[in-house]
Amino acid sequence: MANNDVVVSGIRPTGVPHLGNLRGALQQWVDLQEKYPCFYFIADWHALFGLEERSREIKENTKKVLATLLAVGLDPEKSTIFIQSQVPEHLTLFTIFSAITPVGWLERNPTLKDMVRAEEPLPYGLLGYPVLQAADILLYKGTMVPVGKDQQPHLEISREIARRFNSLFGVEFFPEPQAVLNEYPVLPGTDGRKMSKSYSNVISIEDDHETVRFKVRQMITDPQKIRKSDPGHPDICSVFQLEKGFVDSAYSKDIYDRCVQGLLGCVEHKNMLADIIWQYLEPIREKYFYYLEHEEELWKIASYGNEKAEKVAKETMREVLDIIGL
Amino acid sequence: MANNDVVVSGIRPTGVPHLGNLRGALQQWVDLQEKYPCFYFIADWHALFGLEERSREIKENTKKVLATLLAVGLDPEKSTIFIQSQVPEHLTLFTIFSAITPVGWLERNPTLKDMVRAEEPLPYGLLGYPVLQAADILLYKGTMVPVGKDQQPHLEISREIARRFNSLFGVEFFPEPQAVLNEYPVLPGTDGRKMSKSYSNVISIEDDHETVRFKVRQMITDPQKIRKSDPGHPDICSVFQLEKGFVDSAYSKDIYDRCVQGLLGCVEHKNMLADIIWQYLEPIREKYFYYLEHEEELWKIASYGNEKAEKVAKETMREVLDIIGL
Repeated sequence: MANNDVVVSGIRPTGVPHLGNLRGALQQWVDLQEKYPCFYFIADWHALFGLEERSREIKENTKKVLATLLAVGLDPEKSTIFIQSQVPEHLTLFTIFSAITPVGWLERNPTLKDMVRAEEPLPYGLLGYPVLQAADILLYKGTMVPVGKDQQPHLEISREIARRFNSLFGVEFFPEPQAVLNEYPVLPGTDGRKMSKSYSNVISIEDDHETVRFKVRQMITDPQKIRKSDPGHPDICSVFQLEKGFVDSAYSKDIYDRCVQGLLGCVEHKNMLADIIWQYLEPIREKYFYYLEHEEELWKIASYGNEKAEKVAKETMREVLDIIGL
Repeated sequence: MANNDVVVSGIRPTGVPHLGNLRGALQQWVDLQEKYPCFYFIADWHALFGLEERSREIKENTKKVLATLLAVGLDPEKSTIFIQSQVPEHLTLFTIFSAITPVGWLERNPTLKDMVRAEEPLPYGLLGYPVLQAADILLYKGTMVPVGKDQQPHLEISREIARRFNSLFGVEFFPEPQAVLNEYPVLPGTDGRKMSKSYSNVISIEDDHETVRFKVRQMITDPQKIRKSDPGHPDICSVFQLEKGFVDSAYSKDIYDRCVQGLLGCVEHKNMLADIIWQYLEPIREKYFYYLEHEEELWKIASYGNEKAEKVAKETMREVLDIIGL
């Protein structure tokens, strides 16, 4: 671990967080805050680039995502937790990077076409998404960026922008941020595909015990296992895969063996999983609703984080403006 | 004149202002401040998009352009004179407009290719130039924009963005700004082409009497008029064309006649023009250098304007964020 390592990552407030977020990216965020200075932000500008006229949802989702970050165990003292739009320096550095980033770099971005809604024109802002992302990271001189695999090309653009800035102005100022890949397995949703809001297959942080049970019960296991005594095939069973996100390997192996041997029925297994998920989710959900019901406390924590972030951001911008002579 | 008319225009700090600026755009600015609320700004972000690594020049040029605005008679009480980068709301509105502007609108921009330096890649920021320009104008709900003919396509994009915002959010909020064309003739430079920094054919606000004389003397008149008594052709003479920017039509007609009749020699005519230009330029140049030598006073005036602009900008942004629900 180098002394100057800084973790930066953001989450878009585009919906109510779900188990896939909690047990994936956000668990990694919590792990990292024990080892590094961490800047975690709610990327409301990024959300705007994808939502346009549905911008009204962003504010409500910002509140929910912020409550989630606190509920999963992010500590406002250990980590700097803030809202992107409340630190104006993100847009200042974005604009400066816009001046030195060739459009060609952005047009080659392989994830661009996944981000555009079908049949709709590409907004100028969405094309520049990786430029804003570079500003988000480099404003805090981030060196480590927890990202999903789909975000890795964006991070390559961040490194290119850092290099181009350093080379244009003859400085060694910005670091080249590296991806920190997530070790947590990708959770399947209730339809077996990756859990994702866009597939409507999520178990959300807002679901109660009954809803969790209902959703798990709808899941498809092994179509060839009709009776409990039929030997199952856990490798193709999404209940088994989802369970892996919450239990240790010994537990998982035991389930595997019992299923294959026809000793565990699917209904029983689903009830067990629903309880395991609920055991994990209940305390988080409780804290989540606490914060939603205590908005003043929530916004106070946000203000505290915004101020901490702004202090660092202002210092970086002072240095940047000095380097470029503005 | 509608009651809500507001004039907005900007000038890029990319060089020392010259006679073409003074007798063209800036004279129009001075005229308009008598009739309308006017917001005039130094477009330093726009300059950055064209200059990149030469950004160090921007600060120095900002000072010179600001001194010029005051020297030509813009009144900080009548007009709001400010520096774009000092009013952060320009970038906030720019970012919001970036979310609703299709890239296709910008790629069709016919002036785009003139703005890109040959053989160099197009920076992302330069592609979005008209989006920032829309933000610049609409932040002050500008209805009238003094522009050169080459800037008219940009203004069409401003109107499209205003319409798109109003229609997406179901409001009648932003006006559709209209061009106010400049009535002043385009001044030729010392080589007969349009006076422009990029042709190195300018008489600048910093030139002294000797330099003005020297530059005018270098100008090409009518190659067929060798001696004073030769009949001249004022219509193809750039001295005659340049003179028109400073004299009334009676004077101009008298010169015309004397030249055609072989009663006026080119050397004599050039000396007369150099004196006329100097008579115009001297008091402006004097005020200009006064402000450059009294930087504190200059920046105080800028701060005053920045604050006046920011007050209006903040109010517009409060309304915009309310409309889009952020």
